[in-house]
Amino acid sequence: MTLDALQSLLAKVQRGETSIDDALAALRELPFADLGIAKVDHHRALRTGFPEVVFGLGKSDAQLVTIGRALLDRGGPVLMTRVAPEIAAIVQRALPELDYDATARCLHRAIEQEARGRVMVLTAGTLDLPVAAEAVRTATLAGCVVEQHHDVGVAGLHRLLAIRPLLDGAAALVVVAGMEGALPSVVAGLCRRPVIAVPTSVGYGANLAGLTPLLGMMTSCAAGVAVVNIDNGFGAGYLAAQIARQSVA
Amino acid sequence: MTLDALQSLLAKVQRGETSIDDALAALRELPFADLGIAKVDHHRALRTGFPEVVFGLGKSDAQLVTIGRALLDRGGPVLMTRVAPEIAAIVQRALPELDYDATARCLHRAIEQEARGRVMVLTAGTLDLPVAAEAVRTATLAGCVVEQHHDVGVAGLHRLLAIRPLLDGAAALVVVAGMEGALPSVVAGLCRRPVIAVPTSVGYGANLAGLTPLLGMMTSCAAGVAVVNIDNGFGAGYLAAQIARQSVA
Amino acid sequence: MTLDALQSLLAKVQRGETSIDDALAALRELPFADLGIAKVDHHRALRTGFPEVVFGLGKSDAQLVTIGRALLDRGGPVLMTRVAPEIAAIVQRALPELDYDATARCLHRAIEQEARGRVMVLTAGTLDLPVAAEAVRTATLAGCVVEQHHDVGVAGLHRLLAIRPLLDGAAALVVVAGMEGALPSVVAGLCRRPVIAVPTSVGYGANLAGLTPLLGMMTSCAAGVAVVNIDNGFGAGYLAAQIARQSVA
Amino acid sequence: MTLDALQSLLAKVQRGETSIDDALAALRELPFADLGIAKVDHHRALRTGFPEVVFGLGKSDAQLVTIGRALLDRGGPVLMTRVAPEIAAIVQRALPELDYDATARCLHRAIEQEARGRVMVLTAGTLDLPVAAEAVRTATLAGCVVEQHHDVGVAGLHRLLAIRPLLDGAAALVVVAGMEGALPSVVAGLCRRPVIAVPTSVGYGANLAGLTPLLGMMTSCAAGVAVVNIDNGFGAGYLAAQIARQSVA
Amino acid sequence: MTLDALQSLLAKVQRGETSIDDALAALRELPFADLGIAKVDHHRALRTGFPEVVFGLGKSDAQLVTIGRALLDRGGPVLMTRVAPEIAAIVQRALPELDYDATARCLHRAIEQEARGRVMVLTAGTLDLPVAAEAVRTATLAGCVVEQHHDVGVAGLHRLLAIRPLLDGAAALVVVAGMEGALPSVVAGLCRRPVIAVPTSVGYGANLAGLTPLLGMMTSCAAGVAVVNIDNGFGAGYLAAQIARQSVA
Amino acid sequence: MTLDALQSLLAKVQRGETSIDDALAALRELPFADLGIAKVDHHRALRTGFPEVVFGLGKSDAQLVTIGRALLDRGGPVLMTRVAPEIAAIVQRALPELDYDATARCLHRAIEQEARGRVMVLTAGTLDLPVAAEAVRTATLAGCVVEQHHDVGVAGLHRLLAIRPLLDGAAALVVVAGMEGALPSVVAGLCRRPVIAVPTSVGYGANLAGLTPLLGMMTSCAAGVAVVNIDNGFGAGYLAAQIARQSVA
Amino acid sequence: MTLDALQSLLAKVQRGETSIDDALAALRELPFADLGIAKVDHHRALRTGFPEVVFGLGKSDAQLVTIGRALLDRGGPVLMTRVAPEIAAIVQRALPELDYDATARCLHRAIEQEARGRVMVLTAGTLDLPVAAEAVRTATLAGCVVEQHHDVGVAGLHRLLAIRPLLDGAAALVVVAGMEGALPSVVAGLCRRPVIAVPTSVGYGANLAGLTPLLGMMTSCAAGVAVVNIDNGFGAGYLAAQIARQSVA
Amino acid sequence: MTLDALQSLLAKVQRGETSIDDALAALRELPFADLGIAKVDHHRALRTGFPEVVFGLGKSDAQLVTIGRALLDRGGPVLMTRVAPEIAAIVQRALPELDYDATARCLHRAIEQEARGRVMVLTAGTLDLPVAAEAVRTATLAGCVVEQHHDVGVAGLHRLLAIRPLLDGAAALVVVAGMEGALPSVVAGLCRRPVIAVPTSVGYGANLAGLTPLLGMMTSCAAGVAVVNIDNGFGAGYLAAQIARQSVA
Repeated sequence: MTLDALQSLLAKVQRGETSIDDALAALRELPFADLGIAKVDHHRALRTGFPEVVFGLGKSDAQLVTIGRALLDRGGPVLMTRVAPEIAAIVQRALPELDYDATARCLHRAIEQEARGRVMVLTAGTLDLPVAAEAVRTATLAGCVVEQHHDVGVAGLHRLLAIRPLLDGAAALVVVAGMEGALPSVVAGLCRRPVIAVPTSVGYGANLAGLTPLLGMMTSCAAGVAVVNIDNGFGAGYLAAQIARQSVA
Repeated sequence: MTLDALQSLLAKVQRGETSIDDALAALRELPFADLGIAKVDHHRALRTGFPEVVFGLGKSDAQLVTIGRALLDRGGPVLMTRVAPEIAAIVQRALPELDYDATARCLHRAIEQEARGRVMVLTAGTLDLPVAAEAVRTATLAGCVVEQHHDVGVAGLHRLLAIRPLLDGAAALVVVAGMEGALPSVVAGLCRRPVIAVPTSVGYGANLAGLTPLLGMMTSCAAGVAVVNIDNGFGAGYLAAQIARQSVA
Repeated sequence: MTLDALQSLLAKVQRGETSIDDALAALRELPFADLGIAKVDHHRALRTGFPEVVFGLGKSDAQLVTIGRALLDRGGPVLMTRVAPEIAAIVQRALPELDYDATARCLHRAIEQEARGRVMVLTAGTLDLPVAAEAVRTATLAGCVVEQHHDVGVAGLHRLLAIRPLLDGAAALVVVAGMEGALPSVVAGLCRRPVIAVPTSVGYGANLAGLTPLLGMMTSCAAGVAVVNIDNGFGAGYLAAQIARQSVA
Repeated sequence: MTLDALQSLLAKVQRGETSIDDALAALRELPFADLGIAKVDHHRALRTGFPEVVFGLGKSDAQLVTIGRALLDRGGPVLMTRVAPEIAAIVQRALPELDYDATARCLHRAIEQEARGRVMVLTAGTLDLPVAAEAVRTATLAGCVVEQHHDVGVAGLHRLLAIRPLLDGAAALVVVAGMEGALPSVVAGLCRRPVIAVPTSVGYGANLAGLTPLLGMMTSCAAGVAVVNIDNGFGAGYLAAQIARQSVA
Repeated sequence: MTLDALQSLLAKVQRGETSIDDALAALRELPFADLGIAKVDHHRALRTGFPEVVFGLGKSDAQLVTIGRALLDRGGPVLMTRVAPEIAAIVQRALPELDYDATARCLHRAIEQEARGRVMVLTAGTLDLPVAAEAVRTATLAGCVVEQHHDVGVAGLHRLLAIRPLLDGAAALVVVAGMEGALPSVVAGLCRRPVIAVPTSVGYGANLAGLTPLLGMMTSCAAGVAVVNIDNGFGAGYLAAQIARQSVA
Repeated sequence: MTLDALQSLLAKVQRGETSIDDALAALRELPFADLGIAKVDHHRALRTGFPEVVFGLGKSDAQLVTIGRALLDRGGPVLMTRVAPEIAAIVQRALPELDYDATARCLHRAIEQEARGRVMVLTAGTLDLPVAAEAVRTATLAGCVVEQHHDVGVAGLHRLLAIRPLLDGAAALVVVAGMEGALPSVVAGLCRRPVIAVPTSVGYGANLAGLTPLLGMMTSCAAGVAVVNIDNGFGAGYLAAQIARQSVA
Repeated sequence: MTLDALQSLLAKVQRGETSIDDALAALRELPFADLGIAKVDHHRALRTGFPEVVFGLGKSDAQLVTIGRALLDRGGPVLMTRVAPEIAAIVQRALPELDYDATARCLHRAIEQEARGRVMVLTAGTLDLPVAAEAVRTATLAGCVVEQHHDVGVAGLHRLLAIRPLLDGAAALVVVAGMEGALPSVVAGLCRRPVIAVPTSVGYGANLAGLTPLLGMMTSCAAGVAVVNIDNGFGAGYLAAQIARQSVA
Repeated sequence: MTLDALQSLLAKVQRGETSIDDALAALRELPFADLGIAKVDHHRALRTGFPEVVFGLGKSDAQLVTIGRALLDRGGPVLMTRVAPEIAAIVQRALPELDYDATARCLHRAIEQEARGRVMVLTAGTLDLPVAAEAVRTATLAGCVVEQHHDVGVAGLHRLLAIRPLLDGAAALVVVAGMEGALPSVVAGLCRRPVIAVPTSVGYGANLAGLTPLLGMMTSCAAGVAVVNIDNGFGAGYLAAQIARQSVA
């Protein structure tokens, strides 16, 4: 129930057009209608440029088409993550408004919006690229300007030092690393900005499918690092955009 | 070595006041002096109000006095975390400028500074309070205005819903929870701000000394959540302050 | 050995038709025959409407047909869980009495029986649906009236709050959730009924194939929650039915 | 906000005694006030005999006295779990209404109430007794009739078989076991009632402080078993009481 | 119910002294009474020399005295494991028949019995000695001749090779090792006898309190190895005695 | 090098038929030749009937044929474990002396030998059958008489109680169980013989691919249980045969 | 930037040939240019014979061809690890200079270089061969003389003892073992050289995909052992070559 | 038995001075006597300067005195690790030849010996100092020249870069780091020498008592790193000395 609807309901009670009992019945629904998060979210998405997001993994092409059609009709940016290429192709035939980012494995539609804050995305190695691409796509759809630097892992420190002066230029950094996941600690030590660390499942054996870098990033010796789930480029991009957009609000 | 100092050095070479060999000797230090992070950090701390921080656990009172004296002489805010009360009492005798926050177990000195951004700190239960207090102390020393709400865990949802309108008033939220650590997911679903989740070792058995809420927060069903180490109130407060201060920069 | 058989044996001893030694030999078997659980179970199934259950995973279609034929001949409700569609199709050709629930991946035959208690099944997300369907199918075959609400996860709390008044209408709730598995805690905080929590392997990375929500549900901050194995819809439905059926007995 | 208060507010609007704007302001609070769970919980406790429960571990004697006084003043049954004997002695001096169960390590006050359902509590070994005692105390305070049988572990099966005819006499069973935790599976195979399994940290080495029986009980080969946290006698007793009380409602 | 009692009951039925209904009632109890394991165990212990065993950890001195008195009165060998020296001293004052093995931390009383099979106990290092001593004490009380060789770990292989010809002289070997626990594999490769491997918590870090050698012994590259719990000298000694005593039966 | 060969070599030196240098060269081999385990093993296999065993998993059909030919030529029993049916078919074409046990997935050749001790193999459920079959095959090839009882898991205890009098008839028991792996504890409590427990990966979720029953069997509440690796039917059968054969030596 | 270049720059400033601003601009690059690791690495590879290495897993054939062409053009030894045979065949068509080692799954090009130090590679079993082959290939390309002995696991100790006199002949040993990974401890006890231990994922169940031998090797009872990642033949060969090449420098 | 002794024995056989039977008896001992590692080790220690090492943890002062006296009498360097100060004081009273390194918690006696190779020891933070000190003490006693740099962790990279030119001056580096353990990767990327990584238990929560840095170092993105056990300064120092001493041999 919107504030307008609530106001209107109260006016009817005042005018005697609605009985107290009927109003009570309607207001029983208030906590949920008032919260009305789903609708508000839609409005907010439209208004703010934060994309509507669908976690595509495990969903059928038919489900994606149905959901996608609904979202597109609302008019804001749209993002479907973890969509395999063959599924994407089918969905795109039904929903030609959607583009496919093959690296990020995302279907998406951007909308025109003014730039809102700067995000930097770094990767330790080239195999971390798909996760980074998901973060880039998410933050871009949220209206951020995203700068990327890849393959700047700590085993060859000069690559990272070369871009050091640029680090503080972003409002938030997404740092993607597999293997032992040491990069976020080093980056946080080199700049003053919040670092969102993304462990990846890149590696083998003691990498434990990403659990080792996840735990390592958690226990980072540097202040200013927080961590999202293994391979969760979307989550990192979303959070970075939340931060970056505030920096210019 | 600052840019100014470097410029000055080069001018002296140009004017013949410094020999090439002496300049070389000075510049041998350049990569480190130029990076000169420690010194720069000190300056930055002074200038910006981010506190100098010492991880107190495992350090002797004598070590803390020595380090503390050095930090206090620089003039900025100071924070020593994880200091037991009996150690704190000894350190305070030598360094009476320091106050002791018994809940947060922190020694600290605040400085006057203008308010810089708003942070909210929430706890699921009263046993999470010490971790929250460390976050509050850290963000406060960094110049943020910090609002706290305690004991708003998900088992009694009305307590959280009661403060829901306030959540978006902060630039960043620190959400502290032990047991299964469900609170950050719920909070992130109720507001639009970045949520820094802090798992705590509050609980027993399957809590696994905080590992279970750590992993749970990682795999949160809500977007906009990142996680720091178990019981790491300092890290969460620091990151929240980094975010909040940008929101007004 | 049934009570009838035992009575008959004793009568023969009394009449002198059976010697003490022969009776002793027969009674050596008594502990097992007297327990005679398998047979009693069959009778009980018939009598009570609790289904005969076969764990189908890893069994060949031939094995399922053999077992299924035997169970059907006894006349009660039948349930075969974890049966892949292609196996199910073969079994159904041999046993046309069986229906196939493609979502729950169960073959089953219902029998007419009076309604016995109310069970509610909730899911956090749509990907939890197959596990929930297994629980629904199990409780339904056991004679319960089952109400379902899906996609009421904690990241969008209004969806759950909307059905809050309904929660106490069931005698037992089955709450199915993947990711971090926070839903059962929240539900248990909102109602007075026993909550059977089912962690699912929905999620990735720190979800650890369902181990994280399993441990999280264990260490729930809410009273009134017990947990079954990952993805174990059958176990949750069975237990909920045991509870619900008592509530009207 | 209670229904009464809401009705009264609407009446004032109808009568023109309250403006629409003022009513709007009051209703903004509605979702929380309407939920008003805390108060309702208190009422429910009083009305139903479910005890007010305080998790005592980590709380100071002063905190326990303050909370305890408040709870006692409300008049219902009270339960404080995990209270060490030396703390209990201090609390009892301030709150002589409380009794101390030294085995269960619980402070408690019972109230007169009619019997509501039967619960059985079983232990595998004598070292599991304190956990069982916590369950017994909890279910008893909730008004249930509780029957106990101890030291009936699977290594000496005759002890369990001796009480087998009694098992179905309870509406719910709490089965407490450490080591490998095999007892709940066996009990569930011998009776038709819901089994709440409690793993304990009794054992060493591969027991992993209770994690092994926790996981084992989860993957029980018997239907009708759900599991609570390690050593969580309170949780098991609470859930069993929820079940048992329904059975006679 | 003993066979004699059963025979007597049937005779009464035959003679008409007991009605069929009364006999039925008595036989309902049969499964438990007939099994009567507890008593049989006591008899067996007396007859065979297998000791009555009490796991002493966590038991009070009063409990140990009570149990110990009962066992001693039965007349067979007695073993109480994991008894701290200060507890042992108290128990011995009440039960002077018991000796205390300070290395094995066992209270025990041996009885005269003929030698029954040979057991060999090996340790990798001197810190494994207490666990080995518990195994030695157990097998000795069970009537076995026990030979011991200590500090024969694989880092100095000559020590093991020096006793190689002796290995096949035992009917069963107990091999106790901490650290990585490699010794059982090597021993099993050098002899033809069953090897009972006991991982110990000797070590640190990656030893994981004995879990690493436990898992390593499990996945031994040598055939003829089975494993008991970490530090479980009693279990290994018991099993070795079961094997060894058969070898001469 | 056998003692005979060594004696012969020394005699040649004494007689001057072999130079010291040649003897030195031969004796360089002594530590290995003297140990000469490989050869001795072959002899022992022939003499004793313990089979030559090849772990087939990961080996190509060509490798298996080569190794198999060599083993067959020596004349004793042969066992190749973990051989997939399609590999087995190829190997059998080259080595028609080998039979294939499709349940156990073993290629094998038995030889005539006198019976040597009795082994019993039990399974908790029908899905444990392949692991049990590997144990049966191994112990049979080692000359033991093997008795099997399947599907006697603890969820339906009467099945196990029905064969209870038979348990002590074997010299060693192999008990195979997945899920929570409770069966070995119960069996060890019901008989006096050594129990070799085999955890299996049968189950899902909290079964952790067999790790949970492995740990549970380790921490069994019953004395007389030792454990082998997950699904390691061969290891259990081998160890049981070692024990059983001694029982009649 | 080299010292020479820096000296030359300063001289130009002194001579007025370079302005302070231009020098500042050049020196801004100093930390990275001075480090200039990438280029130095390339030069070092050429000069020293350490191969350029590409981790092939997850890279497409097109990527491998591009990278490989660049590396080959530089002229030193080249190594691409973890390349599947079908990928290798495609790459070789484009880059015929590369050879393929099917056991090690490596593409490589050797160059002529003088021998630099001796490395020994040992395996516990034949299934460890591919990992060992990767180590051999790496150390060989680095110019070392590599000696190999396979299938010398601890279950048949004579095989290892047979080569014992050879062990100290190498400057570094790579010891590859799966299952419980006991071999490195034994080898380190038998020789005086550094042992690089490589755990492998050979085994099943409690091997935990190599985690068990990894942890076991870590907690080795022998001094002189360090460990690399599971199946990481490359890392072990690289480190062994670093050690061995120093031994003759 | 040495080759000389063997040659002499054979000569006596040839000359008839020793009977074949006596030679056989002597040769029976050959495998062990020839290996004769213990004695050789002692000699080697004397000759080479590698210290005799005793793991002091868990040993009584009396045991340490006995062992220490024996080692001191042999004349070489001696090292007792993990000796608490109060134990050390007692041992020193009995063995005044021993010095105590309070940081490393080692008792030791150095001997005069020529310098043998250079080792560098680095720590990430000051809390890693005790572990580093143990490594320093070990390598020093082994005759190496040891250079140390502390507190050069990756969160303040300039500290490490400042000593970068020195890194290649050592033959082996011991890199000690707790928290996430990122330092070894960075060091290995900056130098050409073997890096022995030592994870420490410094940290909390997700550090998992050192397991996280252990696994992280294992899966390092840099080549040339091997890992020893958590807090194992001795093992790292020993291995580094083995490497360094070869580098100048």
